[in-house]
Amino acid sequence: MTDRFSCDDLASEKPFLSGAEAHHAIHVLRLKPGHSIELFDGAGTVAEAVIEDVQRDRVIAKTTATSFVKKRTHDALTIAAVPPKGDRLKWMVEKFTELGVDTYVPLQTERSVVDPRKSKLDKLAATVTAAMKQCGRRWRMEIAEPQSLKSLLQQCRESDDAVLLAHPGDTVEATEATDGCRTLLIGPEGGFTASEVQLAADYNARQIAWPDSILRIETAAIAFAARLRP
Amino acid sequence: MTDRFSCDDLASEKPFLSGAEAHHAIHVLRLKPGHSIELFDGAGTVAEAVIEDVQRDRVIAKTTATSFVKKRTHDALTIAAVPPKGDRLKWMVEKFTELGVDTYVPLQTERSVVDPRKSKLDKLAATVTAAMKQCGRRWRMEIAEPQSLKSLLQQCRESDDAVLLAHPGDTVEATEATDGCRTLLIGPEGGFTASEVQLAADYNARQIAWPDSILRIETAAIAFAARLRP
Repeated sequence: MTDRFSCDDLASEKPFLSGAEAHHAIHVLRLKPGHSIELFDGAGTVAEAVIEDVQRDRVIAKTTATSFVKKRTHDALTIAAVPPKGDRLKWMVEKFTELGVDTYVPLQTERSVVDPRKSKLDKLAATVTAAMKQCGRRWRMEIAEPQSLKSLLQQCRESDDAVLLAHPGDTVEATEATDGCRTLLIGPEGGFTASEVQLAADYNARQIAWPDSILRIETAAIAFAARLRP
Repeated sequence: MTDRFSCDDLASEKPFLSGAEAHHAIHVLRLKPGHSIELFDGAGTVAEAVIEDVQRDRVIAKTTATSFVKKRTHDALTIAAVPPKGDRLKWMVEKFTELGVDTYVPLQTERSVVDPRKSKLDKLAATVTAAMKQCGRRWRMEIAEPQSLKSLLQQCRESDDAVLLAHPGDTVEATEATDGCRTLLIGPEGGFTASEVQLAADYNARQIAWPDSILRIETAAIAFAARLRP
């Protein structure tokens, strides 16, 4: 597979890599002039390019072809999950990126225990970039600001998103892909409280459950993402 | 949620915890006599029990109720995936357990780079147990001996399992749950070779692919497991 790099300025005929991307090309992969690479801007454009010059901390490329694909908007998938502890958050975000989740919202609930600091959420941007390099995705997964359950439910009502609430219970439903934008809510260890489940019901959220198993936050999020992704 | 422990001897009215399970109860959770726990043997039986005595390295319980559920056999899901590197193997096995995969086969292919030593595979048994304690699963996920692609294909032909081969390509198919036993094959980084793809086709394997993305081993395995699980 061609090595892929994140590059913001694909409008230029001679785009360059700097910072972490240049470091990866120069010191990790040790790429030389003449080597073919692929560049993506995370906003739909991908460019085939050839390395022209390798400098101390910068790689100059020359674009040979570009292509653009519009963002899917009619069936976007948003996952609002309480951030799991430790490495599990990073892992979850990597998997969301690979599977084509459009937006991740760090969800705040009554029983949330991890309230990730801004610095931790910023680091997740690097995780998204690394996963994009690996999986070939064009559109960057957005990491939204942390949001409370109520404010998210209101926002979904305004935008007419279908809302799915993952909650263990009798309501074991098939969770097949459907048309339209969907927001999936994943609660903390210990689950949503009864009043949160009621609140979601008031906003017409549909309850979904996994048969015979209590899933960890990141497992539920990834498994339902895989089932809901068109 | 009631604390759950793995316990082999549920036929006894006074089953006991020893080894790692006793350590977890005594030193991590610091459980005392009178505390209610749940015991599972990984072979379909679950017992409700109360702790009677906490000794230095052993916990004696008294069973108050037991229940047994037969193993699903008509729609078993086997995942044969090349072991990914580092922690990703452990992570994958944890998620398989949570999602209800019946058997994991470490798959050997031409481009496999990690050939896990027996000691590493043995450690995965502890990962399965830990995940079972958390997710409430009754039947233990089996970790099979490493197997070559060809021998596995032959075995599937003999047992009449449907075989699915995850391979990037034009054949993007819906991968919904179907009746009958299924074995899903996940190749290494770099994918199956052309001759392996041909071999699988000779054995009537159906190709499946994930749209628009090159998934890591463990991501493909978990995502397809989530879609294929009945």
